[in-house]
Amino acid sequence: MFNGLSAFPLTPMHESGVDEQAFAHLVENLVAAGVSSIGALGSTGSYAYLSRTERQRVAQLAVEIAGDIPVMVSIGALRTRDVLLLAEDAQKSGVKALLLPPVSYQKLTDDDVYSLYETVSSNISVPLCVYDNPGTTHFEFNDELHGRIAHLPNVRSIKIPGVPHAPDEAKARVDRLRAVIPGHVTIGVSGDAFAATGLNAGCEVWYSVIAGLFPITAKAITDAALAGDAAEASRLSERLQPLWSLFREFGGSYRVIATAAELRQFTTMPSLPLPLRTISGEGRKKIAKVIDELGLT
Amino acid sequence: MFNGLSAFPLTPMHESGVDEQAFAHLVENLVAAGVSSIGALGSTGSYAYLSRTERQRVAQLAVEIAGDIPVMVSIGALRTRDVLLLAEDAQKSGVKALLLPPVSYQKLTDDDVYSLYETVSSNISVPLCVYDNPGTTHFEFNDELHGRIAHLPNVRSIKIPGVPHAPDEAKARVDRLRAVIPGHVTIGVSGDAFAATGLNAGCEVWYSVIAGLFPITAKAITDAALAGDAAEASRLSERLQPLWSLFREFGGSYRVIATAAELRQFTTMPSLPLPLRTISGEGRKKIAKVIDELGLT
Repeated sequence: MFNGLSAFPLTPMHESGVDEQAFAHLVENLVAAGVSSIGALGSTGSYAYLSRTERQRVAQLAVEIAGDIPVMVSIGALRTRDVLLLAEDAQKSGVKALLLPPVSYQKLTDDDVYSLYETVSSNISVPLCVYDNPGTTHFEFNDELHGRIAHLPNVRSIKIPGVPHAPDEAKARVDRLRAVIPGHVTIGVSGDAFAATGLNAGCEVWYSVIAGLFPITAKAITDAALAGDAAEASRLSERLQPLWSLFREFGGSYRVIATAAELRQFTTMPSLPLPLRTISGEGRKKIAKVIDELGLT
Repeated sequence: MFNGLSAFPLTPMHESGVDEQAFAHLVENLVAAGVSSIGALGSTGSYAYLSRTERQRVAQLAVEIAGDIPVMVSIGALRTRDVLLLAEDAQKSGVKALLLPPVSYQKLTDDDVYSLYETVSSNISVPLCVYDNPGTTHFEFNDELHGRIAHLPNVRSIKIPGVPHAPDEAKARVDRLRAVIPGHVTIGVSGDAFAATGLNAGCEVWYSVIAGLFPITAKAITDAALAGDAAEASRLSERLQPLWSLFREFGGSYRVIATAAELRQFTTMPSLPLPLRTISGEGRKKIAKVIDELGLT
């Protein structure tokens, strides 16, 4: 399941709970588009803001609606104790894989993080994907640590935060990581603006935020890259520059995609957990214009 | 209560819960030393790693043991929803003040943070201290925002992360903040190595990590500074350079102080929540040597 297009849907919510109907609608949209896997409760799915009960319910719903498409969920939490409980819940819900970010409040050392993955990987019965995203976890992996963790049992993929913009540098970056991890562990790119470059550089999977809302658009890029048509993948990604600009302008993809989901009526406002909010005013108008002009689906 | 020495004790814990006896022992030590207030469940008190039930229990214990010394607890959480519940719990426990850090996973905007403080400050009946510590919250305040928040009802103090090393620059920094906040809001310095400089520069309170374990040592610095003897405060702080060096070497005060608490048998190992651990090997020996040579109490 750690190949192709992995779509990360939002978890629409309001102050009193998760909007299950809206979430179900988003997952149905992914099933219809035929994505390779679904990454529910990723950072985009606001896992960090939900209670244990809410996370279990969302995982169950995703598995139920996804049918044959494998579902992965994040089991990230500050404490190893809580990660283990979340892993148990998720496995009971029937997910096919677990995504583990080294979430931090106090700064983590490499040894802390290795021991977290060591403990968790030996206590689960489904494959694990390592989540490397310093923007949210505030932990910086290095390749030596990636190599050690990738050799642990059950580890099957690494979600990297992006690749350099230049194709040759991107390939060098992926090759360096590939050299220290076993062959059965895939490398997945995230940071949607880097996806075509990353796939062209040898990443086997795109862990994609935009695919959670616009799976057809993301699938076209993935299919072209994985069929070896690097130029077409780059062209399709280049076309989305106005969207990548919005991500830069609004501090990442999270709020832009949630705003787009409201605009496309997949969700209603509020869809994010306070104090986070979607974008209003002029920014919202700009987002509406871009998603319409690009014809994202 | 937002003046003088505010001591932030550890919350000793293991994987199955809080070590209540060890926590009680730490608080008794603070009462005996006569600190001005107790900041239970601060970052040093690992609030972010505890469940709601555990946090309420620790707050109750602190209040019970502190007697006449006012207790403040952190109500930090990623969601406004959870912050409000924690505020309710803490007030029921009898705390005299609440400490609110703008904890983040997805990056917060100034507007998000203002709205968080606006909502919380209008829903509480005890004073609030604003917690500014980008090292753990990953949110950077600016003085304009501090000014707006300081004018909200119930806001009575701001815990700043430190001051510049040079006394005149430290004074300029405190003066700039003072100019935008009302007179009834005190400024408290944290980052223990900066405390003497901060108090000498006009901070009214030291929100102190070392005071949670070594209250007598911290009180001597505070008393000198607040009595106007800047030179003596600086001398006493300068004497602790080997301790400040350890904080720099081990990424902050948190692990060093927890290790010191184990060494002084206030707690037993493990005292931190996994994946966090205290310092072992050569580092531990170095810490033992420093706390003994400095005669910290």
